[in-house]
Amino acid sequence: MPATPSDPGTSRTRSWWGWGYADAHPDDVECAAMGALLPGTLARPLPIPRVADLPIGRPGVLPPPSLAHLVTTDPETRAAHAMGKAYRDIIRSLRGRPGRIPDLVARPTDDQEVADLLDWAGGHGVAVIPFGGGSSVVGGVEYRGDAHRAVLSLDLTSMDRVLEVDATSRSARIQAGALGPVLEAQLRPHGLTLRHFPQSFEFSTLGGWLATRAGGHYATVHTHIDDFVQSLRVVTPAGAGTSWRLPASGAGPSPDRLFLGSEGALGVITEAWMRLQERPRYKASASVAFADFHPAVEAVRAIAQSDLAPANCRLLDAGEAALSGASHDGSAVLVLGFESATAPVEDRLATALELARSHGGSGEAPPADRDAPADAAVSAWRSAFLRMPYLRDGLARMGVVVDTFETAATWDRIPALIDAVRTEVGAAALKATGHAATINCRLTHVYPDGAAPYFTVAVAGRPGDEVAVWDDIKAAASDVLQRHRATITHHHAVGRDHRPGYDLQRPEPFALALRAAKDALDPHRILNPGVLID
Amino acid sequence: MPATPSDPGTSRTRSWWGWGYADAHPDDVECAAMGALLPGTLARPLPIPRVADLPIGRPGVLPPPSLAHLVTTDPETRAAHAMGKAYRDIIRSLRGRPGRIPDLVARPTDDQEVADLLDWAGGHGVAVIPFGGGSSVVGGVEYRGDAHRAVLSLDLTSMDRVLEVDATSRSARIQAGALGPVLEAQLRPHGLTLRHFPQSFEFSTLGGWLATRAGGHYATVHTHIDDFVQSLRVVTPAGAGTSWRLPASGAGPSPDRLFLGSEGALGVITEAWMRLQERPRYKASASVAFADFHPAVEAVRAIAQSDLAPANCRLLDAGEAALSGASHDGSAVLVLGFESATAPVEDRLATALELARSHGGSGEAPPADRDAPADAAVSAWRSAFLRMPYLRDGLARMGVVVDTFETAATWDRIPALIDAVRTEVGAAALKATGHAATINCRLTHVYPDGAAPYFTVAVAGRPGDEVAVWDDIKAAASDVLQRHRATITHHHAVGRDHRPGYDLQRPEPFALALRAAKDALDPHRILNPGVLID
Repeated sequence: MPATPSDPGTSRTRSWWGWGYADAHPDDVECAAMGALLPGTLARPLPIPRVADLPIGRPGVLPPPSLAHLVTTDPETRAAHAMGKAYRDIIRSLRGRPGRIPDLVARPTDDQEVADLLDWAGGHGVAVIPFGGGSSVVGGVEYRGDAHRAVLSLDLTSMDRVLEVDATSRSARIQAGALGPVLEAQLRPHGLTLRHFPQSFEFSTLGGWLATRAGGHYATVHTHIDDFVQSLRVVTPAGAGTSWRLPASGAGPSPDRLFLGSEGALGVITEAWMRLQERPRYKASASVAFADFHPAVEAVRAIAQSDLAPANCRLLDAGEAALSGASHDGSAVLVLGFESATAPVEDRLATALELARSHGGSGEAPPADRDAPADAAVSAWRSAFLRMPYLRDGLARMGVVVDTFETAATWDRIPALIDAVRTEVGAAALKATGHAATINCRLTHVYPDGAAPYFTVAVAGRPGDEVAVWDDIKAAASDVLQRHRATITHHHAVGRDHRPGYDLQRPEPFALALRAAKDALDPHRILNPGVLID
Repeated sequence: MPATPSDPGTSRTRSWWGWGYADAHPDDVECAAMGALLPGTLARPLPIPRVADLPIGRPGVLPPPSLAHLVTTDPETRAAHAMGKAYRDIIRSLRGRPGRIPDLVARPTDDQEVADLLDWAGGHGVAVIPFGGGSSVVGGVEYRGDAHRAVLSLDLTSMDRVLEVDATSRSARIQAGALGPVLEAQLRPHGLTLRHFPQSFEFSTLGGWLATRAGGHYATVHTHIDDFVQSLRVVTPAGAGTSWRLPASGAGPSPDRLFLGSEGALGVITEAWMRLQERPRYKASASVAFADFHPAVEAVRAIAQSDLAPANCRLLDAGEAALSGASHDGSAVLVLGFESATAPVEDRLATALELARSHGGSGEAPPADRDAPADAAVSAWRSAFLRMPYLRDGLARMGVVVDTFETAATWDRIPALIDAVRTEVGAAALKATGHAATINCRLTHVYPDGAAPYFTVAVAGRPGDEVAVWDDIKAAASDVLQRHRATITHHHAVGRDHRPGYDLQRPEPFALALRAAKDALDPHRILNPGVLID
């Protein structure tokens, strides 16, 4: 097994400590230039950490001979599986204080091997952390505490095949360890696509999307991966099972919906039949500028409450629009995109633009020419979107405390919620650092009854205390969300970082049911201990 | 409390033994005329049953004084709460052999009273059957067995208010006991609608829809009530809880999805925040005739796999089309309807008609005039649809074994599934009765990855043995569905009648979790014993 995982189909090396590909990281000069944009940052970037400097001990346990071929104790592999890719994880690596490094990393190749590993772990008090692309930003793939004898990271990426395609029903059976590009490459010859594009698309897996209820490409209608699930296969310590492939059913509570979002705490999702789509043939996009943010929110609400169903309907506030190059005059920008495999979409775009203009926006549809260059603001936003996590790591090296959090709430609460986040999170950041923070907001997903605001926070931290600074900021954010009854997470998941907020949000009868399910399916309490349930 | 429940807003009397309103039942002459259409039916209709003839004993238990004002022991009320409205229930009443008649019927008016009733029942070994409109066709609201000291029917229809409307977020907090017309009447002044119209609309409640994952009006996109739930309030024997009002969330497995479809076995749904819609302003409908059924299925698949999203997309086979008056020449008929509150829908209808014609259908869009009369086949189908359950009861009085069942499967299985149902259910009916059965099929809901076929079976039964005949037919149907991996129910629910099929369909890890949840939430095992879980 390679020491550092490479993506199939590429020869590029994944960073063990930072986002994405190592060769895509900003260099020292770029980091310094970014740092200069904020007051109080470091004079020089923190050095890129080295595995050799990490406190990696000998494994606390070794696998039995029958499983040894699936398991590695290689230090760099273990280091790459110690944490996810939140700012909190990046800075801990940069500061040489990573989370607990797993004793073992296993890469099973089929369900039986997953079951064998769970059996062995259950019998030996070994915690098992299911691991897909490792892109968690909520502490979802690290071990905390010391209740287990050892920790095994269960890396599913050797199970990455599209096993069957049913073109008639436009669906495919896909192994959970397939990264986004890996599964799309296998679907392309069939003219089909899953069309689920979270920001982490390149570095996250189908299984990770399912276990965390990931939000994808769509801004409206089917936004979460949940709706594209036809059937799930789950291996639990108490046995394995597969739900039937069904377009819909009313037979009892949905079995799949219990495992969607279970974050590896109830079982390991090993494969799924997923609903696919034809590739869109018709596309149209445009951007709309608004002098103020709140009227733009009203425009977005009007579009969300129509049945126009834009594929993209992202509202960037002035800071976010400037950062991504979508505007430079202090405007908020609404990025609209329509797609269809059936019929031209220019009429839908035109109706949406009309709604936006009637709320004070200014923007025109580009000429209806399929070869015309896309709207410049739309293109700028798209490139910046994919580059953002790399820039975040560069800023982290300059001593900037920088990360994102997201939520969702009904429309009646959105304006006050966004204002309160700016005020209260800003105050918390100022108190923790002495600097005024940059706080940007965008609406990423919209619904007839509400929206998902997404916030970016950046502020120079107290050198060496960055984790504590971020934890203070995040605690203030969670507190605002809780008081406004906005969800602790729209699509990043709960993991360990969101547990306090999640425990407040979850209704007590469901908590009782979930704990009972955990006891039944994971009696030795080895599966991803600490996420969702104690 | 009135002995026979009347719908608020009407003075019409509900039938205690048959579908809907007593005054809408076909009279003896109409029954005889219907009976004459099938060979082997009775010479005269079975008489309408009388409560006085029922074996109604004294209640096995009486409520404590503190709850007595919520409870009745009136015989007709108890009789009206003994069973649902399946054919199996109707014929048992007609033959004077009803299911177990509950000892008590309670009508709580708030959550505390529901909790008090559950507390008392738990302490006294009394089974509690949550009861909304009582329209279950799967044995969902009757008690079977003798493990409990007494049976309490918990009628929620006194909790029927729309408590709050949030027009900004287009949502409302609605009590679970509101019948369809009752809740729509309260939403109308706000210009909003839940727009969920199951066939039972007049005689079923929001709580019943939620507890059974009812299928509604829409043929595509959001077909089940599940997708319109923003938040649920549930009272369980282990405590009550309310999920947060959210347009979407990725915080753990969906709490609401565990209680949706739980059929009263995990708790009593007492209210919900529901997502509403504006009333549609634009409508267009048309029908398309097909000489053969299977090419019509392909046309429907093409429309379902487009993004046209028809509100109605029902395919009636020749028998179903003739029965409903939509065609009389042996054609299958596709009924298409489009609706929007945002924009005209003629283009979408035209594109759908084009797709249908390219698969061999013949049909034209009506002139684009909003005052034009709706397509005649569409109107005929709609009237017949609502009248059908009354006719079923009339046929039952003539000794006809007649009921429906429904399922869903992926497109690759649909043609063989429908053929197998016709063949094998037909053979079972012939074997059980000596007569060739009428078996009609329609597709009621369609998805990109599959469809929901709905079957009607009618055949003269063996007088006095009708229940056994129907059970034989239903067993054959369940067997075909199971072998074709088609769901035991798309929207009628599991209840007690579908338990064997459900037990085969449900994946074992979910079964373990569900049993554990039941133990945690209903430790005395009083809630709707026998549905979903033993």
